[in-house]
Order: sequence, then C-alpha cells, then structure tokens
Amino acid sequence: MSAGWSITVGELAQLIGGRVVPAAGEDQATASARALRGLAGLHEAGPADLSFLTNPRYESQLASTRAGCVLIASERAPLPHAAQLVVPHPDATLAQLVARFAPPPAQPPLGIHPTAVIGERVRLGRGCRIGPYVVIGDDCELGDGCVLHAQVVLGEGVRLGPGCVLYPHASVRERCVLGARVIVHNGAVIGSDGFGYATVDGVHHKIPQIGTVVIEDDVEIGANTAIDRARFGRTRIGAGTKIDNLVQIAHNVEIGPHSIIVAQAGIAGSSKLGHHVTLAGQAGIAGHLRIGDRVTVTGQCGVTKDLPEGAVVRGSPAQDFKAQIAQEVAVRKLPGVLARLARLEQQIAGLLADKEPRS
Amino acid sequence: MSAGWSITVGELAQLIGGRVVPAAGEDQATASARALRGLAGLHEAGPADLSFLTNPRYESQLASTRAGCVLIASERAPLPHAAQLVVPHPDATLAQLVARFAPPPAQPPLGIHPTAVIGERVRLGRGCRIGPYVVIGDDCELGDGCVLHAQVVLGEGVRLGPGCVLYPHASVRERCVLGARVIVHNGAVIGSDGFGYATVDGVHHKIPQIGTVVIEDDVEIGANTAIDRARFGRTRIGAGTKIDNLVQIAHNVEIGPHSIIVAQAGIAGSSKLGHHVTLAGQAGIAGHLRIGDRVTVTGQCGVTKDLPEGAVVRGSPAQDFKAQIAQEVAVRKLPGVLARLARLEQQIAGLLADKEPRS
Amino acid sequence: MSAGWSITVGELAQLIGGRVVPAAGEDQATASARALRGLAGLHEAGPADLSFLTNPRYESQLASTRAGCVLIASERAPLPHAAQLVVPHPDATLAQLVARFAPPPAQPPLGIHPTAVIGERVRLGRGCRIGPYVVIGDDCELGDGCVLHAQVVLGEGVRLGPGCVLYPHASVRERCVLGARVIVHNGAVIGSDGFGYATVDGVHHKIPQIGTVVIEDDVEIGANTAIDRARFGRTRIGAGTKIDNLVQIAHNVEIGPHSIIVAQAGIAGSSKLGHHVTLAGQAGIAGHLRIGDRVTVTGQCGVTKDLPEGAVVRGSPAQDFKAQIAQEVAVRKLPGVLARLARLEQQIAGLLADKEPRS
Repeated sequence: MSAGWSITVGELAQLIGGRVVPAAGEDQATASARALRGLAGLHEAGPADLSFLTNPRYESQLASTRAGCVLIASERAPLPHAAQLVVPHPDATLAQLVARFAPPPAQPPLGIHPTAVIGERVRLGRGCRIGPYVVIGDDCELGDGCVLHAQVVLGEGVRLGPGCVLYPHASVRERCVLGARVIVHNGAVIGSDGFGYATVDGVHHKIPQIGTVVIEDDVEIGANTAIDRARFGRTRIGAGTKIDNLVQIAHNVEIGPHSIIVAQAGIAGSSKLGHHVTLAGQAGIAGHLRIGDRVTVTGQCGVTKDLPEGAVVRGSPAQDFKAQIAQEVAVRKLPGVLARLARLEQQIAGLLADKEPRS
Repeated sequence: MSAGWSITVGELAQLIGGRVVPAAGEDQATASARALRGLAGLHEAGPADLSFLTNPRYESQLASTRAGCVLIASERAPLPHAAQLVVPHPDATLAQLVARFAPPPAQPPLGIHPTAVIGERVRLGRGCRIGPYVVIGDDCELGDGCVLHAQVVLGEGVRLGPGCVLYPHASVRERCVLGARVIVHNGAVIGSDGFGYATVDGVHHKIPQIGTVVIEDDVEIGANTAIDRARFGRTRIGAGTKIDNLVQIAHNVEIGPHSIIVAQAGIAGSSKLGHHVTLAGQAGIAGHLRIGDRVTVTGQCGVTKDLPEGAVVRGSPAQDFKAQIAQEVAVRKLPGVLARLARLEQQIAGLLADKEPRS
Repeated sequence: MSAGWSITVGELAQLIGGRVVPAAGEDQATASARALRGLAGLHEAGPADLSFLTNPRYESQLASTRAGCVLIASERAPLPHAAQLVVPHPDATLAQLVARFAPPPAQPPLGIHPTAVIGERVRLGRGCRIGPYVVIGDDCELGDGCVLHAQVVLGEGVRLGPGCVLYPHASVRERCVLGARVIVHNGAVIGSDGFGYATVDGVHHKIPQIGTVVIEDDVEIGANTAIDRARFGRTRIGAGTKIDNLVQIAHNVEIGPHSIIVAQAGIAGSSKLGHHVTLAGQAGIAGHLRIGDRVTVTGQCGVTKDLPEGAVVRGSPAQDFKAQIAQEVAVRKLPGVLARLARLEQQIAGLLADKEPRS
C-alpha cells in the first residue's frame, strides 16, 4: 500500500473496536505504541506493516511473521514478533481499513470527456465520470455517480443504477439493465446474443435473441466474462452476487442473490440457481437445471442434474461430495483390487478342482 | 417482445401453414380469433402471448401454461388454456416469426461515423454501417451491407463478405477473411498469433505466425471467443458452423461445416474436425487429431485420440459414451465392491484353513 | 508466406549451417540448386516450398511430401521427392527463417496517432508507435520501440519496458509494470481486481485490491487472457513465460520464468509456480498451492495439492501420472470386475453350502 498514512496499534484498536495482545515479552503500552504504515501478507510483512490471518492455511506463518501487528479472529499465545489485534471478522475489518487507507482509485475526471459519443435522449445522473472514447447509445439512462472508463460501450436503451463502475472495454448491449453499484471489469460483455438455433435438415437457423439481461444491485462481474441476453424474457443475476473472470452465463439463466461464481465456471441455458450458491473455478452447470439455495459445486465439477438446497457436489458428472470422495479413494485401490480378485479366482478354482474329484 | 404488432391465431396459421387445435371446450372459430401480441416461454406466457414447445423437458408445462397459443410439433389432447398451432419444426417456425416480428436490431446508422478511422485503399460495399471509433486498416474490403458496431478493429488487408455483423470490441487481425453473413460478438478475436515456440536450452523462442484465419459463410462467433491465425496456411471455420462464447480455437485448426461448438470448449493446434460435429460446453480436443463427421463430444469431455464418424464420447479422457457410462455406474458401486472383496477373502481364507488340516 | 524472396537449398544450408541430403536418385549439386520461395507444412508444401519435421507425429508424411526441402533433426534415407536439410533444432531454425523472410508485421506508423489520448507526465521512449484511439493514463512510462495498436488502454502510472507490443483492445490497469519485449494479444486484461470478499452474515463485502501485476521480460500473453492485480503486493509472471488465450491468473499468483500456460488453464489465488512449469489446456490449479519447478500438468487436470519439482500429474483431482493411468486402465475393466465378483460370490456360496452339511 502506498505511503502517506501512519497509525499506532492502539489507535487502530480504538478505531475498529479490537483488543491488543502484545508480542512475547512485550507490555501493553509498547504494543499499542507500534506504528503501522502499510499492509502486507504474513510472509511479506515487516515491523511497520499491519498483517492478517484470514485463511487458516497460513496459521503456521504466525510464528515467523515479522509484521508489526496481525488482525486475527481469536487470541493466540503471544507471538514471537507481532502484536495481535483481535476482531470478530478480520476479513471484513481488513476491507474497511483498506477502503479507508488505500490510494483513491484511478478514474476519469468528473464530467464527460470531449471524445465520448453520447446518443440522443441520454439521461446522466449527477457526478458521473465518462472517459475517453466511451460510446453511449440513444435512450440510455445512468444513475448518479456512474464511472465509465475509456472505451466502454453502452448499446441503445441501457439503464445503469447509481454508482456503477465499468472498466475499459466493458460493453453492455441494447436494453440491458444494471442496478446500483454494479462493477464490471475490463472486457466483460453483458447482453450478447444467446446461443440458440433451430436446426432443419442439418442447417442451423439463428433464433433471434430478443430478451435482455438484468443485473441487480451490488453485483461484480469479472474481466472478459460473458453474460448472454435471453431468447425472450430476461437473464438475471441476483443482488450481491459476485462473478469472477472468464465466466460464461448463457441465455435465460437466473442466479439468486449473494452467490459466488469463480473464474472460468460456466452455466448453460435456462438453468436457475438459488441464493448463496458457490460455483468453484471451471465448474459447469448443464442447461435447464434447478440448483437449490446454498449449494456448493467444487472446482471442475460438472452438474448434470437438479440439486436440492445445501447440496455439496464434486466430480464430473457431479455426485454428493462424500460419495464421490469415497469412490475416488476406492478407485485409487482399484489396481490392487484387480490383483486380489485374480488371486481369489485362482484360489476358488483350486477349491473347486479339489472338490470335484471327491464328489 | 416489444409491442406494435398483433395477429390472430388463425392469421398466424395461414401465414406459417400450421393447423389450429382449440383449447379444451373451445370451438375452432374462437381459437382462431385469439389475438397474439407477444412471445414468451410456457411458464411466463399470458393469454396474449404465443409460446412454444421445442424442448421435451418442458412437456409438463403444457398443462399449466396460460399462453394464448403454443407452437408444437405434434398435436396433444386439448390443453386447459392454450390453443395449439401444429407445425413440423416449431424451432424453425419460431425463428422465422421472431425475425418477422422482433424489434429491428440496434445498429449504427447507414454510412461511416465521422470518428471512424479508415485506412488507405479500403473498399466498402453498398449499405454498410460503420459505427463510432471503428478502425479499418489499409487494403480492407467489405461486402455490401456490413455492420461494424462501435470500436470494432480490422487489421490490414482484412476481407469481409456481404452482410457481416461485428459487435463492439470485436477485432479481426491482418489478412484474415470472413465470408458472407458472418456474425462476430463483442470482444471476439479472430487472427491472434498461434501459440508456437521453439524451445532451445529451456528458452522459448517465438515462431512467427504468418498464416491467416478463414471464416466461411453464415458462421456465428460468440463473445470473447479467440480464434488464432495459422503458423502457415489457414485456420478454417466451415460454413454454417456456430461457435459460442469464450471458445478457444488454436492455430491451424479446421472445423467442417454446420458444426456446433458450445461455450468454453477448446480445440488445440492442428486438429481437424468434420462437419456436423458437436462439442458441448467446456469440452477439450487435444492437438493434431482427426475428429470425424457427426461426432458428439459431451460436456467437459477431453478428447485425446482420433474419433471416427458418428462417435459419441464422454469422460476425460474421452471414451465411447456407453462404455464410459457403464464404468461410471460401476465406479459408484466400487466402495461396496471393496467390502464384498474383503468378505470373499475372509471366506476363502476360512475354506482354505478348513481344507489344510484335512489334507 | 508471401512471395518476394527466393533462396536455393545450398544458400540456405550455408546461411543456417545445415547439411543437404539429396532426394532419391538426385545428386548433391541438383539438390543444392533447388529454389525455395515459400514455407508450408509437409502435407501442403509444393516443390518451391521449404517444409519441416518438428513433430514426430508427422513422420509418415515424409514419404509423400512434395516439398522442395525439409528441415529435419536427423538424416533419413533419401526421400522420394524432397531434399533434406539437417539441422540440430529444426524448430528454432524455422523460427529464425520465418523472422528473416516473413512479411513485416502490420503495425501503426511511427509516432502518435492524432486520435490517441495521452495523459499528463507521460514519458515515451524513442521509436514508439501509438495507434488510433489509444488511451494512455497520467504518469505512464513507455520504453523505446513500444507498439500500441488501436484502442489499447493503459491506466495511470503503467510502465512498459522497451519493445513491448500490445494488440487492439488489450488493457493494462493502473500501476502495473511490464518488462522488455512483452507481447499482449487482443483483449487481454492485466491488472483487473482480484476476486476477494469478506463475507459477513451472508453478504460479500469487496476487499479492495490495491496491489499490482508485474510481468517480466519476454513474456507473451494470449488473447482475452485475464491476469488479476494482487490484493496487496504483486501478481508476478516470470521472464520468458508464455501464456496462451483465455487463461485466468488470479490475484497474488506467482509464476516462475520460462513456464508454459496453455489456453483456458486457470490458476487460483496466491498459488506459486516454479520455473519451466507446463500447464496444458483447461488445467486448473487451486489456490494457495506451491507447484515446483519443471512440473507438468496435463490437459483438464485439476491440481489440489502442492507438487514437488518435476512432478507429472493427470486427472481431476490430480495424481501422479503413472498411478492415474493405472487407475484409468483398471476402471475400464471395472464392469467386468463386477461380473467376476458376482461369480466368485456364487461359487463361494456353493462351497460354503457344500461344507455345512458335511460338518
């Protein structure tokens, strides 16, 4: 993090409501007086950095970290070097701190860059920032404080809620609708045609895709992700859902609120996902499925059937996580099983041969 | 679909050559007089909407749909609410109707936007529409009626047949050739360098990729798809082939006519696919393979060997569909197999122990 | 390859230090006098083309090729039609020849296109080529001879070393750093926000991503690939590493030098890869892993655990290549195993039944 701020551990504890645990052999006053001027991971941090334990995988780095202070969810025995700052949600606290101390994001200046091409009957809210070579189609409507970086393209009749941020080369096709505070990263495409054809005598005839896409509030969409418009009706992304890079969302898909779609996952046409669903990286959902609330789909998993609420699935094709793990463990033993089976067959053949002369 | 048109079921039947089947308790005249003003899926449709059954998965919605009329391939017993309009290919009929009644697509006005940068010796056909900030390199040639949306970039010497439509941020690199009526969605890249290196002593030296890409007539290319130029010669996409979003097509690949490549599928270098091949989502084809005509590759399948005409494959690595399914079924029983095997071993050990004292 | 050059086999042998092997029935002088005017694959080449055998898969085409001359690593018996030119590294020699004889790459003219928007305090090296509608943010620094094709966007404070080439619609976000001779293909995104949220009570709060991306010298990045900026610190791509199209590289990933990342592969957050690692197409690496030097990950493989130096892995989840192959072979026998097991159970039941009356 760039320089320009400095805060003591004690001031930070007051600011965020945490409790200070001194390092080994240190008293409370010394710990509280440590000055912090940066943020870094446990491994990289130095004595003037605030660090954090938000992933248990890095537990073992607590003993060796040189950080001045570590944000942590539960108190440990005093660490060799770092003071601890105990807070209930280190991740969330970290996000707040970063938002407070980070350098302001790079964005175009207030107003409309002279090179932007703005269509007819476009309504812009107050405080918008429209960058160079942005193209806004006729009849678009932008809420207050929207930021369109260089070369964003909005088709005709697109509507953006307040506070949306679209990065360079993002595009939103005609008539699609984004809610408030939607973030769209570079190169993401919202509203491209769904993949629909009527095949007659081996020739594929395009079915025009005349629906739209609706993105609800607080959604984030990653770089080069594609979300297709509906054949009719709407492709819909629920409020608070976060979508990573290079994700494919086909026509007429619906994703409930607060879901997490990790990079390179894909959802085929017309599937409906509940809220708080998690698709890990490179996972795939076949078309026309119903995926319940709070379902978790692991990485590279391929879902081909409906899934009830809370299901956790793994494998391609997807199965219940525990059943799949049991099978994977069993498959690892399979070469040995073949040997055991051959031995049994030999033994039984012997027993049967013994028996025959006797009968 | 937006308002502005209205047609009765009877008029529609005349227009498209279908047969009207009244709803339960309704007479022919009443059914034919129903007015339709929109198009919608079975679940969403209301009494003024035309709907359709094109996927057997939605058969069960026929009983509950509130649509005014349903396009259908074979007559059912009268439905509770909807009239039926029986046609041989509902999908194709639907496509024709949509093309007829849909709102005209959003496109730049006729002519060349004043901000477009047009190179030297560029030849434009009649009726082209060139949007804002389009860049066309020297020596390009565009057929009649081409539409280049905002910020499309054509490299030097690119040729487009008549009626091509390129959406915002699509780009075609130098010397690539597109046939007639090719559609390229937002952010798709045609003609990026193939991935080829000569590795000497652990250092990868780039092999210049000096071939091109040839896209034949009536191909559609999805958003953010990448099609690499050949090392020498041509990467080729056959006429009528449809390619979805985020697909990777490597250098020197050839795809025959009328194939379907679903989202996030990838084809490695120099593989040749026949006609009417289907790659489902996230499928992968290794390099230097021959894939026969009418092959079907299921979702997430990984093809590592040549495939004969008509093959249907599944799994990673790919195998014959039925063999793969049989193995998947068997694997699901494998944890039980291990238990059964252990029991057999115990029983045989007992039998052998019994035998030994006797001998 | 376009016309305009012509060289005899003998001149070529002198130029590159190879040895000429005449075709069957031909003398040395005749072979050396053959004139070459193009480059082509074995199957496509004609008598005036230089061809090459760089992949043993095409060995069988040596007998039928009509090429004038074939670059080859070890001498064969005289071929029916083609002369041989024996060199130690045909791939590398080919790359040199292509670089020497290929048509010059299409690029914008020297200088800054009048439509480019250049920020304040931007420093451009000598001999740069800045194309139409390029946008360069404040405080950027470009080394000598950089080429920015149409509509490239650089955020604030981006630094490019000498000789970088960025193709249309490539974008580099604020403060990211590219070394010398980095090539970025169309639509690739460097420095988009990492995918990081703090989830409190089911709501995902964005963790600002305030780190950067560092791309070292001689890296090539494919079309529509996405490389996210670090949460803090740096996402880093080592010198000489080559990345194909549509690859996902998450925040805080580090890739060592001279690695190969094939199309549609993905690497989740904070994983560290060594040097000379190969990820084949559609492979995935889970987050927070350590992947040793010279590791090979096969196509569609899913790595979920750390891998030691030199490991070769296959399958999803990944396992040692040989163990995985043994299991795949065993699984193919599994349906038969079930039948054999049922037969054994029947036989043993018979033996046990026989035994009981006797005891």
